[in-house]
Amino acid sequence: MTAVDTDSAQRRRSGVRRERAEVTREHLLHTAERLFAERGLSEVSSRQIVEAAGQANNSALAYHVGTRADLLRAISRAHVEPITRRSRELFDETRGSSDPGEYLGCLVRPYTEHLASLGTPSWYARFAAQLATDPAYVGVVLWAPELAALLEDAHHAMSAHVPDLPSELTRLRYQTARLAVLHTCAEQERAAADTGVPADWELIGDALTDGITGMLLAPVRPRPHQG
Amino acid sequence: MTAVDTDSAQRRRSGVRRERAEVTREHLLHTAERLFAERGLSEVSSRQIVEAAGQANNSALAYHVGTRADLLRAISRAHVEPITRRSRELFDETRGSSDPGEYLGCLVRPYTEHLASLGTPSWYARFAAQLATDPAYVGVVLWAPELAALLEDAHHAMSAHVPDLPSELTRLRYQTARLAVLHTCAEQERAAADTGVPADWELIGDALTDGITGMLLAPVRPRPHQG
Repeated sequence: MTAVDTDSAQRRRSGVRRERAEVTREHLLHTAERLFAERGLSEVSSRQIVEAAGQANNSALAYHVGTRADLLRAISRAHVEPITRRSRELFDETRGSSDPGEYLGCLVRPYTEHLASLGTPSWYARFAAQLATDPAYVGVVLWAPELAALLEDAHHAMSAHVPDLPSELTRLRYQTARLAVLHTCAEQERAAADTGVPADWELIGDALTDGITGMLLAPVRPRPHQG
Repeated sequence: MTAVDTDSAQRRRSGVRRERAEVTREHLLHTAERLFAERGLSEVSSRQIVEAAGQANNSALAYHVGTRADLLRAISRAHVEPITRRSRELFDETRGSSDPGEYLGCLVRPYTEHLASLGTPSWYARFAAQLATDPAYVGVVLWAPELAALLEDAHHAMSAHVPDLPSELTRLRYQTARLAVLHTCAEQERAAADTGVPADWELIGDALTDGITGMLLAPVRPRPHQG
């Protein structure tokens, strides 16, 4: 065996090792996402994830993924990145529209289309809703800079075409719209997983787009308790 | 001491014992609600509740309240009952109206008024949102028969005054409206607890009423991917 042969054999072996490590990492992420969605974020220990993924070594999660925050961030990014990319494409095609519903569709439909692409059962919608509600993690790991930039651009594009409200009320309506989408998708995903009947994500995406458009365009009604 | 005196002393002692047990029970419920809201439902063990409530006996929770489902049900009922009672009153005053927003106000405002009555920090909105999202408890303990009857009456009263949609879409819109209210209130309560600045529950109640009215009245828009 020559020195060149040894070198190339070593490279090959190290390539195989890297590939195996990547497969193990992916498997740990999928297993964690499923357990989190089914049992709840704080119900599931690192040990349970490692065991359910069939790994013998208890430190496999720390080695392949990192801390619990790293784990939640890695699961999130694998979904948030393609969703945000698609939203950005649609948004760029929609620029110039005076119809807030079109912009909201660019934000909602890539999410429901992504959920549809995952098949039944999927776990991500429940995972994302829990991450957004859990007192220990809320706001800490869900956020992607590209998503924040996209949401800001979308708010800006819509601002001339929604009622001119005090900023407090506008913020509240966007918050409610975000939570409505997040939690409706989670409940629909859970129902699909429980019954085995796939969710109609196209219908859900359209209904949510119509619904939050109606919410953002709603007039402020006079109150009996005012004045 | 006569037999009559002994009798009345015994009755007094047993009355005091009952009263003390009731105080202990209330204190356990309040402690549990706070811990659940702050740390998450599944983060908190019975032992932690008993300790945080300053009870020496580990079985205090089982003795005074019962199982975990009994505990969650007892916390829920203490809030759901007065909210539902007030909603029913308002609903009965509103009967005959053709304005869906008025009916929705009867459902939303008693909830935000109840949260306002709890002061800052309150815990119930976060507790309720977690209970509605937790895979282990969703739908199991939150439900009160009077609330179910009220929601049915409200749907019926509104049905002639909202767009005539396929029942699947109508159900989806009501689900989204419920989740929007539940989770917006939870996030607002959390922000108030974190900052110490009380939430403006009157503004939030009005904004949610306007928002979900807009959502239920929203037209179904034509879709590029249809036909």
